[in-house]
Amino acid sequence: MAQPRIIIVGGGFGGLAAAKALSRTPARVILIDRTNHHLFQPLLYQVATAALTPAQIGTPIRGILRNQRNATVVMGEVTGVDKEQKCVFVTNADRSDVPVEYDYLILATGSTHSYFGHDEFEIFAPGMKSLADAVATRNKILQAFELAEAEEDPKRHRDLLTFVMVGAGPTGVELAGALAVLIRTTLRTDFRRIDPASARIVLADRSPRVLTTFSERLSQAAKRRLENLGVEIRLGQSVEQIDDDGVVVAGERIASKTVIWTAGVAPSPASKWLQAETDRAGRVRVESDLTVPGHPEIFVIGDTASFEEKGRPLPGVAQVAMQQGRYAARAIHRRVTAGSLLGPFSYFDKGNMAVVGKGFAVLQSGKVQVSGFGAWLTWAFVHLQFLATSSLRLSVFLQWVWTYLSGQRGSRLIVSHHGPKPATAAVEADIRAAAPRK
Amino acid sequence: MAQPRIIIVGGGFGGLAAAKALSRTPARVILIDRTNHHLFQPLLYQVATAALTPAQIGTPIRGILRNQRNATVVMGEVTGVDKEQKCVFVTNADRSDVPVEYDYLILATGSTHSYFGHDEFEIFAPGMKSLADAVATRNKILQAFELAEAEEDPKRHRDLLTFVMVGAGPTGVELAGALAVLIRTTLRTDFRRIDPASARIVLADRSPRVLTTFSERLSQAAKRRLENLGVEIRLGQSVEQIDDDGVVVAGERIASKTVIWTAGVAPSPASKWLQAETDRAGRVRVESDLTVPGHPEIFVIGDTASFEEKGRPLPGVAQVAMQQGRYAARAIHRRVTAGSLLGPFSYFDKGNMAVVGKGFAVLQSGKVQVSGFGAWLTWAFVHLQFLATSSLRLSVFLQWVWTYLSGQRGSRLIVSHHGPKPATAAVEADIRAAAPRK
Repeated sequence: MAQPRIIIVGGGFGGLAAAKALSRTPARVILIDRTNHHLFQPLLYQVATAALTPAQIGTPIRGILRNQRNATVVMGEVTGVDKEQKCVFVTNADRSDVPVEYDYLILATGSTHSYFGHDEFEIFAPGMKSLADAVATRNKILQAFELAEAEEDPKRHRDLLTFVMVGAGPTGVELAGALAVLIRTTLRTDFRRIDPASARIVLADRSPRVLTTFSERLSQAAKRRLENLGVEIRLGQSVEQIDDDGVVVAGERIASKTVIWTAGVAPSPASKWLQAETDRAGRVRVESDLTVPGHPEIFVIGDTASFEEKGRPLPGVAQVAMQQGRYAARAIHRRVTAGSLLGPFSYFDKGNMAVVGKGFAVLQSGKVQVSGFGAWLTWAFVHLQFLATSSLRLSVFLQWVWTYLSGQRGSRLIVSHHGPKPATAAVEADIRAAAPRK
Repeated sequence: MAQPRIIIVGGGFGGLAAAKALSRTPARVILIDRTNHHLFQPLLYQVATAALTPAQIGTPIRGILRNQRNATVVMGEVTGVDKEQKCVFVTNADRSDVPVEYDYLILATGSTHSYFGHDEFEIFAPGMKSLADAVATRNKILQAFELAEAEEDPKRHRDLLTFVMVGAGPTGVELAGALAVLIRTTLRTDFRRIDPASARIVLADRSPRVLTTFSERLSQAAKRRLENLGVEIRLGQSVEQIDDDGVVVAGERIASKTVIWTAGVAPSPASKWLQAETDRAGRVRVESDLTVPGHPEIFVIGDTASFEEKGRPLPGVAQVAMQQGRYAARAIHRRVTAGSLLGPFSYFDKGNMAVVGKGFAVLQSGKVQVSGFGAWLTWAFVHLQFLATSSLRLSVFLQWVWTYLSGQRGSRLIVSHHGPKPATAAVEADIRAAAPRK
């Protein structure tokens, strides 16, 4: 009898964990992803702020699975699922919607950013989900510094040095903190005309506190820390408008040339593919074994799934996705090898962490709630642990030590494919100011 | 009396060396570059073959000059020079051709690739001058592997695994060698359906030997080494056509999806700005003190200048540019501080090196001509020395040691801004082949 075929869609934390956990299953495992790399998303903000390079958080999926002989990696985009025919549709450069059959399907397609019905905001306030997003954000931030250095009009100078983050969850908080540190270190030494004190970082959210997935106490600690770093926090205030000139927050216009969307996420279209029941956020409601009701051969995991425990849906974090990926793999393994079922999935919450600036993090694990340098060391240690390869662990570790000690960031590159794109808004004035003529 | 103003155009090896050598000159130094980084061009081929990351060979110019108080860095594009009014024109995002006055001008604008009158080749055969070029080439090479893995049509599979380099100078030789090593290591372990032996690398040049700036003996050594790596070398053969289907070399069509232009360079338009006399290659003929005839305040250095020594023009290499940059700085320093002139420039040739594959280089210095592992170690040592910062030296060193020992390359990322770009040409066939149905 031929081996069953298991298709995994998505090479994020969930899909990759599932693929690896299937290494000893007598089956053909096919992992399909639209990029060629696994992305370590929790560190994406460090690429956006030039602390890490893309290669330090993106790892080729083929490389990770190269020694797993039952696994095949396909770079392509899944566009749909036919539950009855048991096939997924894959679109590629030449053809679209090629059907590929499966015996078991694991959908680990993650989430994308949601503009809450305001998709027109995207052009002015890009989100942060992919490496390309992070590099674009980095280019944007560094470009703003270059433009500000050359700008003599005080209003434009100020607008260029105003950075607005929409959404005060982990991404917004970590990005705002890292940006504050970047401005304090890099701007002070690298630029001649920019006063770091004149830079303004605004973090806005309609919820009443930052990091709502943490306890009230840790939210407060993170908020205080951000304020000490000079970040202006606007809570309970909705962002009503985003355009080329900035944002409107609770009726007040804040002029800014750099707005970054760090708010809501929306699940991938997997629920549409499946025509399955979803929760209010659009995530597929799954059974206690992570399968789709009526389809025990289809697992949905990670950000794409809605799984309630103690009456609350599990958060969209890496830990959940990894544990669910491993569970789905075990469940399939047992069915393939023993023909029996596994007990229901249950989540073991190891805790939650977020970094605020340099040498400070908040950590919540069960009843433990700590903030400060110790939490930051724990954060650094845990994140190094979870990087995909040992060479990355060493590379990121050395980079962090170096950045921590020197304050320098090597990855401050503006790499554009659109040819030379000069960034000076008033070069003459700039140069006159820097080097007055006799 | 106000300090004189020195404008340096270009932050490559020449311009940067000049700026640094002016650190003690009582003058205002303004370095203008259209990117924000100094590029270590000799290692560009390693970015294209995923051995190094962009941040390892691109260093923010502001960072390099941050402690030099008399220096200002401007990101902008120079579009012209008015010799009589002593000003350069700088174009920026908002305005074009803003005049900026100088007392001394150092033009270090480098070179670009030349398609010898066939600019229509560029779209099919991108060149290798900037970080964006190298990243695009890397994407192209990795994408070809992905497409080949999924391609069942034998002809298309073969075309996708045929790589043609046009031009057998240092860039072509180093790129062909690195690509051969990449294919042997990465393809063998990462892909399931590609046979590394089926990949074909063609290196074509109309000159009768590779590396014409080296001795006949070293050319032969490099050629033999490339052939051992499986590179097909076509010398004395012109590339007559490049299009979407490949190239035509000496009347024979070679089907290929990945053609890379590693041939001629053309100087930047500095000669047009100056309306100055040029040599046949378009480089500005300079006096023995590197100034433009009739304009002792304008220096032209590096690839942009034509400077003959012993009847032969100096080659367009980093060493020449750096020595000329330092000379121009000394000449200006002396005029500013002592009002006197410096003797003529003379070039001290430390030698010439090129890497072929892994652990092999050719080295020529005076009468010394060596090839092999020792030359490669020397090459590695010398190149580490010349990296802009000590943290880069450590980072590149560790990366090389790691890559040498493990054969792994961490920088195999396809990062595209154009959203998901599936790369499979026949996904169904691919998957069927990889995981046959029962």
